[in-house]
Amino acid sequence: MIRLYTGARSGNSHKIALFLSVLGVPHETVEIPYGPELRTPEFLAKNPRGQVPVLEADGKCIWDSMAILVYIARAHGGEKWLPLDPAGMAEVMQWLALAENELLFGIAQARIMLRYRGPEDELVFLDMKRARFLIQRGLTAMERRLASHEWLALGRPTIAEMACYTYPALNAEAEIDMTPYPAIRAWMDRVRALPGFIPMIGT
Amino acid sequence: MIRLYTGARSGNSHKIALFLSVLGVPHETVEIPYGPELRTPEFLAKNPRGQVPVLEADGKCIWDSMAILVYIARAHGGEKWLPLDPAGMAEVMQWLALAENELLFGIAQARIMLRYRGPEDELVFLDMKRARFLIQRGLTAMERRLASHEWLALGRPTIAEMACYTYPALNAEAEIDMTPYPAIRAWMDRVRALPGFIPMIGT
Repeated sequence: MIRLYTGARSGNSHKIALFLSVLGVPHETVEIPYGPELRTPEFLAKNPRGQVPVLEADGKCIWDSMAILVYIARAHGGEKWLPLDPAGMAEVMQWLALAENELLFGIAQARIMLRYRGPEDELVFLDMKRARFLIQRGLTAMERRLASHEWLALGRPTIAEMACYTYPALNAEAEIDMTPYPAIRAWMDRVRALPGFIPMIGT
Repeated sequence: MIRLYTGARSGNSHKIALFLSVLGVPHETVEIPYGPELRTPEFLAKNPRGQVPVLEADGKCIWDSMAILVYIARAHGGEKWLPLDPAGMAEVMQWLALAENELLFGIAQARIMLRYRGPEDELVFLDMKRARFLIQRGLTAMERRLASHEWLALGRPTIAEMACYTYPALNAEAEIDMTPYPAIRAWMDRVRALPGFIPMIGT
């Protein structure tokens, strides 16, 4: 049985839960509260970054949401979700990179700063001006693509959707005005219509 | 012929030049100076983020260094550099994610702030405390792995090395004390000994 270590407020964890649900992969979930439990030697042995999500499968721990999406696609999803031809795989990977960069350091950080910042929260001393710059760069790249395509990569849903949906969907918590992004809003509706879709708290 | 759009001071561009050199893939290089040429409509059509590197191959433009490394591995490198089994591919991807996250928002940003910050430089209003936090988290994860393994993923050099070498090698420009990271220093020597290795300016 696959085991997913997750956090209730973790957008990166939602990406994995969403993909497992869309594929219908049975799994168990272990919730780790945000805080010192992420920094125990036992948990750091699972993930040296001290973060959720972590996926335990075949006796191995895989950390990082992007790596976990790739693992699940290869183990359970097949080429439909992550093609193996060079150009197709690279096209999907571009959006996984944007999710790790602009969406995480932009939207996820803005959301933490505005909603969930704790007194000893070393993770969130990023400034808001920087977050806004990254949000605009990331959403503009997505809007440009989605203005003329239904899906981010190729002509179908791929793990690019699983990687890039959650944080834009949390736009309210990050106080982002989505008016300039009609194509992203229409695309989010298409993602929500995928069989097996599950929402995240706050979206 | 593959064409690489690159920048002299861009660590992300060096990752690609390094991998092409190690594999011996013929290519031409077009250098784009840092500044407004990256934001012309013509260049934004190649990369909506307005950044180097971009790889032109088979009439397509691939942006993001991670996606480009994946493309080259699939087109020219084979499974030696990026395996296709779920666990092996995920293990490589973990380090590609760390390169996009801690190394880029830590080391690359610290380096720009300390050495290359321009007057109108919107890219670099990240604070140094945040960069230092990310640098420590990223290098500690690498050190933990490399203390007992020769290479980041699997038992051989993979694109994890191509993604994670350049920024730690620029430690002097980012004013990082590498004393706590002996395993990383030994690993950098092993990367430099790979046939076809080419250094980056500043390393």
